[in-house]
Amino acid sequence: MEINKKISELLYVIKKKNPLVHHITNYVTANDCANITLALGASPVMADDINEVNDIVSLASSLVINMGTLNSSRAEAMIVAGKRANKLNIPVILDPVGAGASTYRTEAAKRIISEIKLAVLRGNLSEIRTLYGINTQTRGVDSSENVLLKREELIKEKQMAKDFANKLKAVIVITGAVDIITDGKTLYYVMNGHEIMSKVTGTGCMCSSLIGSYLGASQNYLIAALAGVVSMGIAGESAYELLDKKQEGTGSLKVRIIDAIYNLSEDVILKRCKVCED
Amino acid sequence: MEINKKISELLYVIKKKNPLVHHITNYVTANDCANITLALGASPVMADDINEVNDIVSLASSLVINMGTLNSSRAEAMIVAGKRANKLNIPVILDPVGAGASTYRTEAAKRIISEIKLAVLRGNLSEIRTLYGINTQTRGVDSSENVLLKREELIKEKQMAKDFANKLKAVIVITGAVDIITDGKTLYYVMNGHEIMSKVTGTGCMCSSLIGSYLGASQNYLIAALAGVVSMGIAGESAYELLDKKQEGTGSLKVRIIDAIYNLSEDVILKRCKVCED
Amino acid sequence: MEINKKISELLYVIKKKNPLVHHITNYVTANDCANITLALGASPVMADDINEVNDIVSLASSLVINMGTLNSSRAEAMIVAGKRANKLNIPVILDPVGAGASTYRTEAAKRIISEIKLAVLRGNLSEIRTLYGINTQTRGVDSSENVLLKREELIKEKQMAKDFANKLKAVIVITGAVDIITDGKTLYYVMNGHEIMSKVTGTGCMCSSLIGSYLGASQNYLIAALAGVVSMGIAGESAYELLDKKQEGTGSLKVRIIDAIYNLSEDVILKRCKVCED
Repeated sequence: MEINKKISELLYVIKKKNPLVHHITNYVTANDCANITLALGASPVMADDINEVNDIVSLASSLVINMGTLNSSRAEAMIVAGKRANKLNIPVILDPVGAGASTYRTEAAKRIISEIKLAVLRGNLSEIRTLYGINTQTRGVDSSENVLLKREELIKEKQMAKDFANKLKAVIVITGAVDIITDGKTLYYVMNGHEIMSKVTGTGCMCSSLIGSYLGASQNYLIAALAGVVSMGIAGESAYELLDKKQEGTGSLKVRIIDAIYNLSEDVILKRCKVCED
Repeated sequence: MEINKKISELLYVIKKKNPLVHHITNYVTANDCANITLALGASPVMADDINEVNDIVSLASSLVINMGTLNSSRAEAMIVAGKRANKLNIPVILDPVGAGASTYRTEAAKRIISEIKLAVLRGNLSEIRTLYGINTQTRGVDSSENVLLKREELIKEKQMAKDFANKLKAVIVITGAVDIITDGKTLYYVMNGHEIMSKVTGTGCMCSSLIGSYLGASQNYLIAALAGVVSMGIAGESAYELLDKKQEGTGSLKVRIIDAIYNLSEDVILKRCKVCED
Repeated sequence: MEINKKISELLYVIKKKNPLVHHITNYVTANDCANITLALGASPVMADDINEVNDIVSLASSLVINMGTLNSSRAEAMIVAGKRANKLNIPVILDPVGAGASTYRTEAAKRIISEIKLAVLRGNLSEIRTLYGINTQTRGVDSSENVLLKREELIKEKQMAKDFANKLKAVIVITGAVDIITDGKTLYYVMNGHEIMSKVTGTGCMCSSLIGSYLGASQNYLIAALAGVVSMGIAGESAYELLDKKQEGTGSLKVRIIDAIYNLSEDVILKRCKVCED
């Protein structure tokens, strides 16, 4: 089956199955993450207290761990919930927001990676490089830097992604101008999206929530990750196309991204999906 | 006086009195709750630290306790603020978000109910059933499950709501496809609203904030609760009517719900209000 | 050079320099603050844990301390980050949200002012009066009260602002119907904005984030503060002009405010800027 057909079928499954997606996430983008999860056809539940994450994750079809606005009590809850998810075979995605920007976040992300079996790790280039062990220069949590334009750069990133995926036995997703998704064997590039998305906070977080939603509807983590990245990219580019450029900007763009996910159909995916296998 | 007249008059009072509504709430929907409170004509103040809730609630006309993203320090602040509110005769509404989804939340909600005198308790069907003591199956915090379609089911829920209201000496509100509002004697059904509202996170929280706002402007808790439910329902249905279905979805819907509350007038209430007494 | 020219040039600088703006802020408006910072052309990083604020602020060009939804661990992080910022000559803006509404917040704000050297202090009238030491009546965090209409009142506030600026050796910003910006010597009034902005939560917080962004691009704190206030005012008034008053309200207004900042140009500033020097 062609890859865009597989992705579009997964959208059908998610809308039918309506998976519950447990989020342990940050307070900056939690609302958008919840709304985009609902818009896609899944159900979010946000819970980060150590006293309840075991109960909550046990009800869920997948777990999204997002490290934005990390603090020590939330970090503990991530470990507890992740371990329970592993025990129950519930897939876990980690979004290591800001890894590299502080020692604290880098160490917390490394601890999660070492103690929790991940289904997917999604970050921007500097976050993934940091966790892979390459000394990198980061400015915080934005994705503006990870533009992959030069061919030789792209080849290096591809190798790192594959190697990291094999080490972790997880799907690695690097989002940027061109997105990379790999399980260590197969590698996909996604060319959907628009650069204006980096001017809206939380487009990375929302992408992770979409992947988390698809993970709750599929055993194939590679396709689930790909479906999340493609869905987010299509939403961003079609939201941008609809903008009235004279008077609208990133405020309207965010609203239209949620709208686009709500209106995402199998047909839209088949028509717009820009994936190529390496 | 007819009931829709009473509700519309309360809107007039709220805009004139501009009550201060203290919220102890979750970080997922706090922004929407603050904005819908302002849009209605009240003033929100969000404060959840145990060191200041006594001061803040003493300035307020009502207190909204919302259990989303609960943690232990916020739970303590809820108890402290609730007791102070009781002492000062400031009405309290509890939104037991996610009760039933974890033992922690269920126990926390039960503790609040036993230690604080509530004016209103508002939840979806599974949350209210959980607190009433019926073993229920919940998937978290969404309201998609509480569809009351079968006549015999509706009769059961009605009895439970009345009985619970009498036990707590509080107004019970169950929101869903049909909303139930009762003080144990009188019972109202509200048919306003649209099912798409369950695809936006926080419509339940926002409903509680609207009720909290009306509570700050009226001694009649039953009418205040009814006014909140009717206002939210009208906002949801008129927001949906204005949606450009080809390209807009739940992102725009949320924006339009706030807009609709901002534009809510006594005339709109008189025209759209769909309440019937049991 | 004329003042509106100076402001418009600073917009050019910010878009070119893309300063990183560290926020320690509240969970109610954090999303809007991040998005408006991005829309202006700066990069926000939200981090409030004591274990990482030293690392984060060291990467930043400016620090925004916002006291909304304050708690004790965030209060400690504010002190730590502020001191580090002082050591590194990174400008700090304090937004004392709710000072006066509780002893806790008032004391926390006073502590920050006494231990941290501020570049800018921005609040509404009751917050600034509280911190200056005038006993004031506040209702929480909204700005509806600080309408400066009477001439004699305005003269008093002007004197207080100048005196406070000289005491703190910082720029004082009082936002309201007419905004006051002073470094103790020069004093500007800004007449941009629209009263409907007080019906959207976080317009004050967003103003502080804009000032914080300009602070990251300029050594002239007075002009940076002025640029933030003018930008916010222009965004509010042009967002209001674009509203379809029949069906849109404060939900759409917030979206359009972000849009307006995204579309803010040097020409728009030159044309709309309403500043006069005292």
